[in-house]
Amino acid sequence: MADPIVTLTTDFGDASPYVAALKGALLSVNPAARLVDLSHAIAPQDLRHAAFFLAAAVPWFPPGTLHVVVVDPGVGTARAMLYVEVRGQRLLAPDNGCWTLLDAPSRVFRLAEPRFWAPTVSHTFHGRDILAPVAGRLSLGLDPAQLGPPVSSWVRCPWPEPCREGGVIRGEIVFVDTFGNLISNIPAAGLGQPRVVRVGDTRLPGPLPWVRSYGQAAAGELVALASSNGFVEVAVVEGNAARRLGAAVGTPVELHVDVNSP
Amino acid sequence: MADPIVTLTTDFGDASPYVAALKGALLSVNPAARLVDLSHAIAPQDLRHAAFFLAAAVPWFPPGTLHVVVVDPGVGTARAMLYVEVRGQRLLAPDNGCWTLLDAPSRVFRLAEPRFWAPTVSHTFHGRDILAPVAGRLSLGLDPAQLGPPVSSWVRCPWPEPCREGGVIRGEIVFVDTFGNLISNIPAAGLGQPRVVRVGDTRLPGPLPWVRSYGQAAAGELVALASSNGFVEVAVVEGNAARRLGAAVGTPVELHVDVNSP
Amino acid sequence: MADPIVTLTTDFGDASPYVAALKGALLSVNPAARLVDLSHAIAPQDLRHAAFFLAAAVPWFPPGTLHVVVVDPGVGTARAMLYVEVRGQRLLAPDNGCWTLLDAPSRVFRLAEPRFWAPTVSHTFHGRDILAPVAGRLSLGLDPAQLGPPVSSWVRCPWPEPCREGGVIRGEIVFVDTFGNLISNIPAAGLGQPRVVRVGDTRLPGPLPWVRSYGQAAAGELVALASSNGFVEVAVVEGNAARRLGAAVGTPVELHVDVNSP
Repeated sequence: MADPIVTLTTDFGDASPYVAALKGALLSVNPAARLVDLSHAIAPQDLRHAAFFLAAAVPWFPPGTLHVVVVDPGVGTARAMLYVEVRGQRLLAPDNGCWTLLDAPSRVFRLAEPRFWAPTVSHTFHGRDILAPVAGRLSLGLDPAQLGPPVSSWVRCPWPEPCREGGVIRGEIVFVDTFGNLISNIPAAGLGQPRVVRVGDTRLPGPLPWVRSYGQAAAGELVALASSNGFVEVAVVEGNAARRLGAAVGTPVELHVDVNSP
Repeated sequence: MADPIVTLTTDFGDASPYVAALKGALLSVNPAARLVDLSHAIAPQDLRHAAFFLAAAVPWFPPGTLHVVVVDPGVGTARAMLYVEVRGQRLLAPDNGCWTLLDAPSRVFRLAEPRFWAPTVSHTFHGRDILAPVAGRLSLGLDPAQLGPPVSSWVRCPWPEPCREGGVIRGEIVFVDTFGNLISNIPAAGLGQPRVVRVGDTRLPGPLPWVRSYGQAAAGELVALASSNGFVEVAVVEGNAARRLGAAVGTPVELHVDVNSP
Repeated sequence: MADPIVTLTTDFGDASPYVAALKGALLSVNPAARLVDLSHAIAPQDLRHAAFFLAAAVPWFPPGTLHVVVVDPGVGTARAMLYVEVRGQRLLAPDNGCWTLLDAPSRVFRLAEPRFWAPTVSHTFHGRDILAPVAGRLSLGLDPAQLGPPVSSWVRCPWPEPCREGGVIRGEIVFVDTFGNLISNIPAAGLGQPRVVRVGDTRLPGPLPWVRSYGQAAAGELVALASSNGFVEVAVVEGNAARRLGAAVGTPVELHVDVNSP
């Protein structure tokens, strides 16, 4: 039986000692925990980035994997800390909605038992002083029901929903990846071959070619396709669509579909 | 019994093959070592950054953890390589003072036995050719006393000490974190609620509000508080104090305390 | 017996969920695999960067280590995915030449058995949907000969070779590391103490001092030396040669050697 996996997702960056302190605090409780870095480059305090990231990453892990998420603009306020089970995964995170794009949870507990926390809890680093020790205990087999009372309401991540009028769907860019690919909030499933006609303020000269993969068009060409997590994506083949189009998170996208599509 | 933990802290960055070569050289000696990345984003050859980082990170690990530190502007000179035991932790590092903020060490050995090193030692990468193989051997149980002679003097990190005249304490910013929070060299313990009146050349319009956590003030407000590692910190709630104040490492800080405080 | 090591090298960056999804997909097949990050900062779709990186990093690992490489500008085209054994190491990578600087391989198979892949394979993320599950299976002991047919031809990385006329050798910078050190494509072995006379368009005032290590010259001095992976390197002691000389990948380098040297 392999040692338990605990993943880490933070907005701490690489140059600060916070990631290291988090890891040390967790390993001090369970030296056998196997830490897996997901990202420490969530944009500082950017809950939408965190939410998009977790929705695209967490479901790929083995059932029961424990994920520690520390993107916590509300540290030191009355916001709760939560244990969440959703889609067969387990998360520890502040109650700020960062996990709510994953799905409806099967159960949620509010962390309320300081006996599982660090003996002294700072006012500014609850990831290190609460989440890490609790993650260590859970990885040792602690029953999550002991962490605190079940809760039935929590903060939800505000998320822009696309809207459709007849054959016109309007959404927006919700993530720009390392390659400058623009991922929208419009699910690609069931749209057939949608015609992206606008990205940002400027109507494109014509609808973008809809391709299955970057390789179906020539280098430098603007294309639209289904992203690897199932949303309409705009890309430049072997290039950077964000730079080409001056687009960023929040940039509006408009596409046309056959009115008979579902 | 879990496999031994070996942490890695370097200034190698992510795009160069040096971190990978270091990991490979270590795992070639002990394939069972469990590597934990602390940071590879120490500013190049910046020993003060390394020293601050290690002081804030290393004490959180389980006793006996082995930490490999490769920030080594003196590679290829006569500077020694050291094995250090301090605060129950074990470090391998060049003798450049990077660990000396942690505390007085309980014992220090100079690495002097090439039989524990790579068969061929390059002139420019002692991390890979000396520290990694030695770390591998230590993680297999080698007695550190075999590494070389004990030493009783070593390079100390030059570190700015704050100075106090009556109720005025002057220090400086020693670290700027990912969020733009400004961490000073002034320990917060025992100061009560110090009034930060100057950051850099400009006297602030008034003393900064002293808060317990960011959440006690409104977004955008400048505040002072105790950092998560116990120093006076200046922050902008949900914002970036370094940008707001044009402050960086070395920027002077002045604060006032009640003259009766200890 | 330690759990199997699987290393990861990608151009995904840290802020995107792709690295996390890759790790999750791999651990879902073999939760006991021990993941080791080599780099996720290969420049986007930069095969020369990937090739240089792998040649400098992979040989340091224990024999039999499995390396997953996802730098894949051709995702979704007809390019094959390969299993490669070279220098005692095992790699999974797209057939784009990224591994060919390592050496001639002992055997190569083309991945052709979808039963070892994800049940659904996306058109844009074969790292997650093909390489990760295959890596998981290999780490569980799958015989690589089951992955698909052996192949005897593959894409080779175009690599600039240095040229020599009498005592003059012309090459170019092939990598700039975190410190701004300039690594050329000219092997240093057998050159004695070559005299670097030109970097870029400007002839230097005189040949650069040839040193064994940075520590042999004063801070700020331009020097030439053998890099830690054996090539002629130009560096500024405790400084940044790339900035000083305005040099980058592709910048020409010229050096003089004694005509009697081999």
